[in-house]
Amino acid sequence: MAPATPRVVVKVDLKKRPWEQEQPLHNRWHPEIQPVGEVKAGEFFRVEMVDWTGGAVKDDDSAEDIKSLDLSTVHYLSGPIRIVDEDGVAAKPGDLLAVEICNLGPLPGDEWGFTASFDRENGGGFLTDHFPCATKAIWYFEGIYAYSPQIPGVRFPGLTHPGIIGTAPSKELLRIWNERERQLEESGLSSLTLCEVVHQRPLANLPIAKGCLLGNMEEGTPEWERIAKEAARTIPGRENGGNCDIKNLSRGSKIYLPVFVEGANLSTGDMHFSQGDGEISFCGAIEMSGFLELKCEIIRNGMKEYLTPMGPTPLHVNPIFEIGPVEPRFSEWLVFEGISVDESGRQHYLDATVAYKRAVLNAIDYLFKFGYSKEQVYLLLSCCPCEGRISGIVDSPNAVATLAIPTSIFDQDIRPKTRKVPAGPRIVRKADVMKSTYDGKLETTRNPSSSSYS
Amino acid sequence: MAPATPRVVVKVDLKKRPWEQEQPLHNRWHPEIQPVGEVKAGEFFRVEMVDWTGGAVKDDDSAEDIKSLDLSTVHYLSGPIRIVDEDGVAAKPGDLLAVEICNLGPLPGDEWGFTASFDRENGGGFLTDHFPCATKAIWYFEGIYAYSPQIPGVRFPGLTHPGIIGTAPSKELLRIWNERERQLEESGLSSLTLCEVVHQRPLANLPIAKGCLLGNMEEGTPEWERIAKEAARTIPGRENGGNCDIKNLSRGSKIYLPVFVEGANLSTGDMHFSQGDGEISFCGAIEMSGFLELKCEIIRNGMKEYLTPMGPTPLHVNPIFEIGPVEPRFSEWLVFEGISVDESGRQHYLDATVAYKRAVLNAIDYLFKFGYSKEQVYLLLSCCPCEGRISGIVDSPNAVATLAIPTSIFDQDIRPKTRKVPAGPRIVRKADVMKSTYDGKLETTRNPSSSSYS
Amino acid sequence: MAPATPRVVVKVDLKKRPWEQEQPLHNRWHPEIQPVGEVKAGEFFRVEMVDWTGGAVKDDDSAEDIKSLDLSTVHYLSGPIRIVDEDGVAAKPGDLLAVEICNLGPLPGDEWGFTASFDRENGGGFLTDHFPCATKAIWYFEGIYAYSPQIPGVRFPGLTHPGIIGTAPSKELLRIWNERERQLEESGLSSLTLCEVVHQRPLANLPIAKGCLLGNMEEGTPEWERIAKEAARTIPGRENGGNCDIKNLSRGSKIYLPVFVEGANLSTGDMHFSQGDGEISFCGAIEMSGFLELKCEIIRNGMKEYLTPMGPTPLHVNPIFEIGPVEPRFSEWLVFEGISVDESGRQHYLDATVAYKRAVLNAIDYLFKFGYSKEQVYLLLSCCPCEGRISGIVDSPNAVATLAIPTSIFDQDIRPKTRKVPAGPRIVRKADVMKSTYDGKLETTRNPSSSSYS
Amino acid sequence: MAPATPRVVVKVDLKKRPWEQEQPLHNRWHPEIQPVGEVKAGEFFRVEMVDWTGGAVKDDDSAEDIKSLDLSTVHYLSGPIRIVDEDGVAAKPGDLLAVEICNLGPLPGDEWGFTASFDRENGGGFLTDHFPCATKAIWYFEGIYAYSPQIPGVRFPGLTHPGIIGTAPSKELLRIWNERERQLEESGLSSLTLCEVVHQRPLANLPIAKGCLLGNMEEGTPEWERIAKEAARTIPGRENGGNCDIKNLSRGSKIYLPVFVEGANLSTGDMHFSQGDGEISFCGAIEMSGFLELKCEIIRNGMKEYLTPMGPTPLHVNPIFEIGPVEPRFSEWLVFEGISVDESGRQHYLDATVAYKRAVLNAIDYLFKFGYSKEQVYLLLSCCPCEGRISGIVDSPNAVATLAIPTSIFDQDIRPKTRKVPAGPRIVRKADVMKSTYDGKLETTRNPSSSSYS
Repeated sequence: MAPATPRVVVKVDLKKRPWEQEQPLHNRWHPEIQPVGEVKAGEFFRVEMVDWTGGAVKDDDSAEDIKSLDLSTVHYLSGPIRIVDEDGVAAKPGDLLAVEICNLGPLPGDEWGFTASFDRENGGGFLTDHFPCATKAIWYFEGIYAYSPQIPGVRFPGLTHPGIIGTAPSKELLRIWNERERQLEESGLSSLTLCEVVHQRPLANLPIAKGCLLGNMEEGTPEWERIAKEAARTIPGRENGGNCDIKNLSRGSKIYLPVFVEGANLSTGDMHFSQGDGEISFCGAIEMSGFLELKCEIIRNGMKEYLTPMGPTPLHVNPIFEIGPVEPRFSEWLVFEGISVDESGRQHYLDATVAYKRAVLNAIDYLFKFGYSKEQVYLLLSCCPCEGRISGIVDSPNAVATLAIPTSIFDQDIRPKTRKVPAGPRIVRKADVMKSTYDGKLETTRNPSSSSYS
Repeated sequence: MAPATPRVVVKVDLKKRPWEQEQPLHNRWHPEIQPVGEVKAGEFFRVEMVDWTGGAVKDDDSAEDIKSLDLSTVHYLSGPIRIVDEDGVAAKPGDLLAVEICNLGPLPGDEWGFTASFDRENGGGFLTDHFPCATKAIWYFEGIYAYSPQIPGVRFPGLTHPGIIGTAPSKELLRIWNERERQLEESGLSSLTLCEVVHQRPLANLPIAKGCLLGNMEEGTPEWERIAKEAARTIPGRENGGNCDIKNLSRGSKIYLPVFVEGANLSTGDMHFSQGDGEISFCGAIEMSGFLELKCEIIRNGMKEYLTPMGPTPLHVNPIFEIGPVEPRFSEWLVFEGISVDESGRQHYLDATVAYKRAVLNAIDYLFKFGYSKEQVYLLLSCCPCEGRISGIVDSPNAVATLAIPTSIFDQDIRPKTRKVPAGPRIVRKADVMKSTYDGKLETTRNPSSSSYS
Repeated sequence: MAPATPRVVVKVDLKKRPWEQEQPLHNRWHPEIQPVGEVKAGEFFRVEMVDWTGGAVKDDDSAEDIKSLDLSTVHYLSGPIRIVDEDGVAAKPGDLLAVEICNLGPLPGDEWGFTASFDRENGGGFLTDHFPCATKAIWYFEGIYAYSPQIPGVRFPGLTHPGIIGTAPSKELLRIWNERERQLEESGLSSLTLCEVVHQRPLANLPIAKGCLLGNMEEGTPEWERIAKEAARTIPGRENGGNCDIKNLSRGSKIYLPVFVEGANLSTGDMHFSQGDGEISFCGAIEMSGFLELKCEIIRNGMKEYLTPMGPTPLHVNPIFEIGPVEPRFSEWLVFEGISVDESGRQHYLDATVAYKRAVLNAIDYLFKFGYSKEQVYLLLSCCPCEGRISGIVDSPNAVATLAIPTSIFDQDIRPKTRKVPAGPRIVRKADVMKSTYDGKLETTRNPSSSSYS
Repeated sequence: MAPATPRVVVKVDLKKRPWEQEQPLHNRWHPEIQPVGEVKAGEFFRVEMVDWTGGAVKDDDSAEDIKSLDLSTVHYLSGPIRIVDEDGVAAKPGDLLAVEICNLGPLPGDEWGFTASFDRENGGGFLTDHFPCATKAIWYFEGIYAYSPQIPGVRFPGLTHPGIIGTAPSKELLRIWNERERQLEESGLSSLTLCEVVHQRPLANLPIAKGCLLGNMEEGTPEWERIAKEAARTIPGRENGGNCDIKNLSRGSKIYLPVFVEGANLSTGDMHFSQGDGEISFCGAIEMSGFLELKCEIIRNGMKEYLTPMGPTPLHVNPIFEIGPVEPRFSEWLVFEGISVDESGRQHYLDATVAYKRAVLNAIDYLFKFGYSKEQVYLLLSCCPCEGRISGIVDSPNAVATLAIPTSIFDQDIRPKTRKVPAGPRIVRKADVMKSTYDGKLETTRNPSSSSYS
């Protein structure tokens, strides 16, 4: 009498490469990528996924795979899945698709993940001007906990979530994306709105045929060529959800996604064992393969009912989310603040990005004093369950951003002590993250007052 | 045998105006403003404060007081308080001052507050291009709860905190502030780093003698004139803490403030019954008079021990905070997302400010569908305990910011419903916020797709 | 335009003794005790109260006041308050009275409390056979925190609540109480249902004229004499609520009380700054004077609508409670277990009282190993925010009860350590609770295997 | 380089019956039951287990399997597992075994469970005098959530935990158990300490050869016969842990178990998807098969270091627990109270068992008014994450116990409403639990005032 345990709608084989999977994967957003399965509203189903690089990063003792990673190939997504209602009628443009995350986790037998920062000339990260080298740390899982041989003294329960979940864009929405991102790419540094402080990284990642995987379409055919040139990259989050990187989207959460094409064409991937708000090192979560167990409902005409477009077309919307009831509880937090003054002392105007950068830099230098290398902290704050807040966004000229770190993830008390700290050498932890050389010539940022880098 | 109940170090009389108080207030940061009291490390003491406008905003039925508020007079702060150790030796530059908030609240007999947005040409707010008029809502307190006749259907427990707490800057630090803010003011719109989207507001607020209150210094004397021209405005948060607006700094929190002058010269003010992350409408918290009960410790040489300057001088630091254990618990949150694409559809580059603006706009339009005017929601999201997060700051070109609203503060279920919503007219709540006319000529932003404004 | 701040309905003067208060107090439950004030449904009002002993216990260095306390005088309650609806019509028998606790706290200038255990022959406590002496500890408040010079190394935020809140019984309900308690008193030790293990204490406390305070009734009149002989003691919780000692009834809680007499006649008292589940030492909370800020609603016919009598009459009901949203958060708990086997090794049958006694004894002996005296722990577990759970009540013959202690209230890590504990003398804390001699002759219980008592 | 994913130390095959498993199971506590595996301290390992009845209860539409269940066969446990330190030296009597629960859950493909109450003459339950019939409900799991076709309108996330985890008793401890339980069984109803109110159930379950499974010992041999007559039943929790039924022992918890035999001989079983405090219907959790992922540490001499015996021998100890950081969050609770007055109106003396019984009865009758049958609520309160508290245990003669139910598990608002409830028929939910006839002759308890039973 029992209902079947979740029906497996997408299965992956970790021994095969992304393009060899029985159910084809894809790494672009395009309305013409064909569904690999169909699901009824109310059905309880399972989707498996490879890690976002499709196995390109190894559990070994070098960061060279990170340094040389071909970013044109990411993120490998599972799906699209076509969603129909109880009567078999497909979701339609204008509907909302409510997706409940009933469960998720690593794939059995593959209980590990990695956190990394890219080389400044191959993707970089939020602090790439400070940390231009590729670095890597490996995390092993013991049930709900993760620990890393490269970052000893830290262990925390995962707030596991999919980095990417989204519906397929319509042709029109795809056109909007490509146009606005091309415009940014072209106007570039001369644009008034560009945040100078993080200008070191690629601006936008426009469609590119190289590395493209489009489900079951055969590479090299004219149709493949056409779509590859149009299909949006998966890196930024956009109107269809996509790479939202909302770290609390864990067990019990609900995602209300706008539907742009018939059947909704739900795709998901980029599983994170844990991530900090901001995912600062870019490859910053604990990246892994994994599974999702889901239930979907269709809210007919829900886009009109619940969403208001914010922009020139009815397609300029954003998804809505509900946070689930099961999360690690932390009761003590240490909070670092940043204001929108950069490392050179220059004043920026209500710029939350600059303020958050400073909050993160403050936290890194603080934890450095407790025996970690700065690279260790950079990766740790990318993946541990820290919270990044926009605390004040109106007090001209300073935005105030804060980074709150749960103190119980450390095996030492990291709070400032009122009583005199005993003299003597600090604990120095021998292990460190793996690190490649930086062979580029771009200038790095140096905090004039900082203690020396490890 | 009992220790005295908290010693009242600063007392205010709400029937008097700010400049008439027995213990003089001040509304600027300057090292030469004289302490009004002294406190020993470990002592349990009480500081009272007027609201940030010093009583200029009334519990009446008009927003005209907001429209015409003279911002050169804010914020009225209590202090400075000189801190000494158990042996009577003053805190010294280079120390850290640990301030524990043991309790806080409204002043007895004055249990009300206000939330407002300024006129676009007199201070504005985060969304002033959308909401150029001055608006105002009054909140009454029933113990831990606040409710507003102007925003019916909402009631929530306060996460009360001081908006401003800080130490006096040294002369050198003051010089750094004035210089960098003047530079911003002068380079203005032509600056590369300016976030165009919020350019409608004053850039920085430089020192100005008008409205200046400097403790017990007599107005008009040469010394007063000199200091008034140097003393920093209190609006932005800076290296000394100040207007941090960190909404979780409530009962049981600790603040580690750098010490720049002998005695630390602690000042505080701008009490908030409650505030949302970002305090978006600028006068956005539930602003009130109030009291703090505090304990201080001095961590000798703590700045060197714990803080790393981030900038060209050893003074470029930020305070650290610990969040307290007593907070309202919310278990369900509805989350709105924004990406760094503005209302015109233009792509910005990893700009968290733009992304947060869009998240807020999304939330406003969503709640508008549940019977609130947009102005009601704008003020509500400024002051209710909502969380503003930087979710993704690395996925070029889109920053992803989220705004999470606790659902239980509403008297209706605000979540999207899968089942068909019954037809018929929506609930329209008759009451609305008080609103002045906007008489200026600056252009406002209009979301081309938005439903009409209320 | 502001509503008045809470109207003070009951005011107390701590310089006067209970029977000297302007608004008379009472220390018995009886329908004929006259209301001292009236409140409308929806009105926000304030009630002040003396501590449960009416000032008999002092902030001094001796436990003699505890040893000689006259228990016939407790608990001094504020009220009764007559409740009417918006139209002035009184609450009626059969209604439910919903009382919301909007705020509460100590009275200004009286920020201290006491925790004590009574002498075995004058009230005793849950472990009086182990701890026959009167003991006392004083707690001082620093805002939300309490600390005791007699129990150093511990500090915690209060989960403040009224120990007693209830409506007046009807004559019929009063008769039921007196009859069933008299029956217990008379059958006594021979009763089959008596829990032998805690038999050392008085069984029931029947009405007694001695010590009786009946509001504004003049002592010695015939009417006073009659009522004094009928009026129920306030010690146990009963159908009208009363001494529930539910430690989570703090800010934001709601209490649904059955109404037995016209006007409901709400009384309250016995304020606790903090209490552990069970309040084990009897005078076990941090007892203090204080204030409540309340709002009431009348649910007409609510008793029939929501409550089902459980017993021979329609009056055999119990109140319902809602726990409020604002509480201290603790994320780590150390849990002690007890089963229903007593200290002599004897097996009891599914007896949760015995099981809980053992859990508490286990916790006391455990913490004794960390440098506390057993009396210190006995008082601490009475008043700190520990949780007492009935974990298993069906697995014959053992009930399993647990006591969970939040670890963060200690200034040392009290968890068992896997790594070798360093040899050497344990920390011994010099201070101890105040302690009187036990001059009685009743046998005490001695755990044959326990380490020596302090 | 990755460590192996958890090593599977005990594997079960759900297609086989308990006595057919490759690694033999056991259903008694005895020091001579042989280990089925060995684990090193620090090793991350996995233990699988059958449900407590070993598959005797089916996912079908009848409660007959419950009515006729042979309780002599329960609980089927996995283990014993021998624990050694990093050097291969076994845990020794006097050590403490720290067991961390890193993860747990249902077995893939078997995601369902059952909750049941036994027939009054075959095991009964806490309220068997009110509910003498065998009843059963089936629960299906959707990831973290459970729902039951027999109890519609309810869905909740599981706080999954093992009902039983313990070490093997030594011969001496076993002797103590058997003696004290035999004494209870023999003195029976005439015992002074017996709680009359729950006397309807079997007192103790003494060793019995019938149904006995002893690992790899061959049934019928003299050694088997001897051990079967000595081996303790698994129903009650005891000094070795065992059937503690502590509902919060979920992911991230730690259990400190005393070691009585060389190697510790850890056994575990009786997996619960979810349970309410008290597990009131006896087969009251959501019972299922499942897996545990564990890590052990040995604290040498930890019993002496941390535990104090409470009773005549050094073996009279209880384990200690730490509650883990990952739990469902609930912020609103409705609380029912009970005092130690029974259904006939009779007064009991500080009897927490009676008080809790009344709190549960109050809750059942309350929820009955919202459209549930009383049997539905009885099973629901057995298995949902409700909290049973000992609120007051000192206010003679009434113990006060409370039952707190998280309101968000219901699809309707179950709180009392101040506004008039609309007239008309109540929602009646058609589905009900499965129910057998009660064919016995024992009297049942009838609440004289209760509304009719469903």
